[in-house]
Amino acid sequence: MQSLRVDLGSRSYPIHIGPGLIGDKDRFAPALAPGPVAIISDSNVAPLYLEALDKTLRSLGKTVLNIILPAGEGSKTLASIQEITGQLLSAGFGRDCSLCALGGGVIGDIAGFAAAAYQRGVAYLQVPTTLLAMVDSSVGGKTGVNHPLGKNMIGAFYQPRAVIADTDTLDTLPEREFRSGLSEVIKYGLISDQGFFSWLEDHMDAVMARDTAALMHIIERSCADKAEVVTRDEQEGGLRAILNLGHTFGHAIEAASGYGTFLHGEAVAIGIIMAADLSRRLDLIRESEQDRIYALMEGAGLPTLAPRLPVTEYLRFMQVDKKAQGGQVRFILLRGIGEAVITGDVPPAAVIQTLNAFMENEHGRD
Amino acid sequence: MQSLRVDLGSRSYPIHIGPGLIGDKDRFAPALAPGPVAIISDSNVAPLYLEALDKTLRSLGKTVLNIILPAGEGSKTLASIQEITGQLLSAGFGRDCSLCALGGGVIGDIAGFAAAAYQRGVAYLQVPTTLLAMVDSSVGGKTGVNHPLGKNMIGAFYQPRAVIADTDTLDTLPEREFRSGLSEVIKYGLISDQGFFSWLEDHMDAVMARDTAALMHIIERSCADKAEVVTRDEQEGGLRAILNLGHTFGHAIEAASGYGTFLHGEAVAIGIIMAADLSRRLDLIRESEQDRIYALMEGAGLPTLAPRLPVTEYLRFMQVDKKAQGGQVRFILLRGIGEAVITGDVPPAAVIQTLNAFMENEHGRD
Repeated sequence: MQSLRVDLGSRSYPIHIGPGLIGDKDRFAPALAPGPVAIISDSNVAPLYLEALDKTLRSLGKTVLNIILPAGEGSKTLASIQEITGQLLSAGFGRDCSLCALGGGVIGDIAGFAAAAYQRGVAYLQVPTTLLAMVDSSVGGKTGVNHPLGKNMIGAFYQPRAVIADTDTLDTLPEREFRSGLSEVIKYGLISDQGFFSWLEDHMDAVMARDTAALMHIIERSCADKAEVVTRDEQEGGLRAILNLGHTFGHAIEAASGYGTFLHGEAVAIGIIMAADLSRRLDLIRESEQDRIYALMEGAGLPTLAPRLPVTEYLRFMQVDKKAQGGQVRFILLRGIGEAVITGDVPPAAVIQTLNAFMENEHGRD
Repeated sequence: MQSLRVDLGSRSYPIHIGPGLIGDKDRFAPALAPGPVAIISDSNVAPLYLEALDKTLRSLGKTVLNIILPAGEGSKTLASIQEITGQLLSAGFGRDCSLCALGGGVIGDIAGFAAAAYQRGVAYLQVPTTLLAMVDSSVGGKTGVNHPLGKNMIGAFYQPRAVIADTDTLDTLPEREFRSGLSEVIKYGLISDQGFFSWLEDHMDAVMARDTAALMHIIERSCADKAEVVTRDEQEGGLRAILNLGHTFGHAIEAASGYGTFLHGEAVAIGIIMAADLSRRLDLIRESEQDRIYALMEGAGLPTLAPRLPVTEYLRFMQVDKKAQGGQVRFILLRGIGEAVITGDVPPAAVIQTLNAFMENEHGRD
């Protein structure tokens, strides 16, 4: 097992990473509040891991309530918050209870916001079961649900008491979802950790084979790199925006092609390749660096081709992106492998050149 | 105008108190975020004060959106949060917007939680228009909505950027609601401010006549006294419980007699008189102090008789009260005028004596 600590003063918490952790009660005990525990999971994950987690919590003498939501983004609504609250109240759960999210990012977002809001805040633990949730949702405290008019529009910044990432759960993760998670892993190397990027170039075979030691390493590095950024900017003042590398193009890809066509990590992979292209056009990185980025994404089995849509469509979606401020689109670009920069000062012509390149030859290489 | 500052580190904010403040743009300007403003009000208050506030905000060059909810506790639901979010998104409001609550405690609770949750938190200003909202909701950061199974069960601790209490709005406050607010004012004197309690004994005529200077004084004192408690215990760890003086009995009165029979402040007034009776039985205060409390409540036109219900009913509601911990009911009692104490160590026989006394002679005096 490896552990790291996300340092946020009185809201600091540990992330434990390793095989078999769902059965390791000593990881849970220090993070739980004195009262009962509700496990919040979904219809995909519950049949696989809920019984084991339930057993661990009961071995600590806890009363355990299981709340199982339908799997998928469709559950990220205020109706789910109302439902969870109702079940907690019916079971007589007070402010000394704990909510334990067992699942991927969607369950973490819902359970985290439910914990933030229930009686104005109760203890919250994350047991992520997807690579994306382990490397992304574990750090940052973003929770929330969707509104019909916008994703993640209702939520809270709320920190868990502990994240317990059991690498065994990745055994059952579908290949496409696993690769999608790798996209964010590669992102951490790119934005702030050149050494990690090189490590990934050298060890992608072990990662793709889901070797336990390799998985523990990439999760630990990703969480540590993200924590480094988040602890310096907990509420998204500025710096934290570098975590959105590839997301301006990526969100446009997701929106323009219809949500669900691409997994989030897949859209981000293409977005990162596009951001690298734009960075190279602006002479921030060399062509050899762009090549390495492209090669690593390809090696991780991630898509590298942007969907062919009118450039005007892309531009439209990029301008309504959340990162747009005062009408100007801010880009996260690369100034080398391991260094991201935030800039609102990108000539629209360069953006259009990048988009055209991807539309013309489908991989954006001149 | 009087101003005080609630000291909560980076979340500190001013409370401005005085006549005509809704028209005073200099009070609003420093508290607003750079983007547009939504005024959230209700169908009772909007016809009276919304136009004036709207004008003030527009004079600062702001785009202003008006969101008017049906008046009353029935609006304190997640459906209102969904509705507000939808209106904000439709109007294109980003994270740089401000929400401005114009109304009583219900509107403050809803708008505050909407501000806490919208895009994970936007700027929030309070313009309270009831005495209760000015002296109670202005300080403490409690926001939230109800669930069919429990009041205030979904919410957040979220601080406003400023509270702007325009005493002119109290001119239109119905007499019963005004008196209900006085109950909380008297409470602050009782729990921590003997001098203020004496001042109220000497100046109740001016207060009841709604003299502007007297109103400014009681609002300023109440906010300062509450702030003193809240800054020492922002998230309700322990000390803050003293603010619930009279609320254990009071909630039982509200619940046992059916919500809506008594206004909250009326139930609290009776609850305080009952808590004083219990404190005297436990030799914590003298009979002369109990008499002063009774007299001041009576002087403020507040009810002093508990509804006649079986004592078992009261006990049942007191045990499900939020303040019950580990099965034991914690009481907030008085150790003198100006000093409240929290205790879980009250002999049930004494509680039953107090309840019996109130049921038998309807005012609890032996």
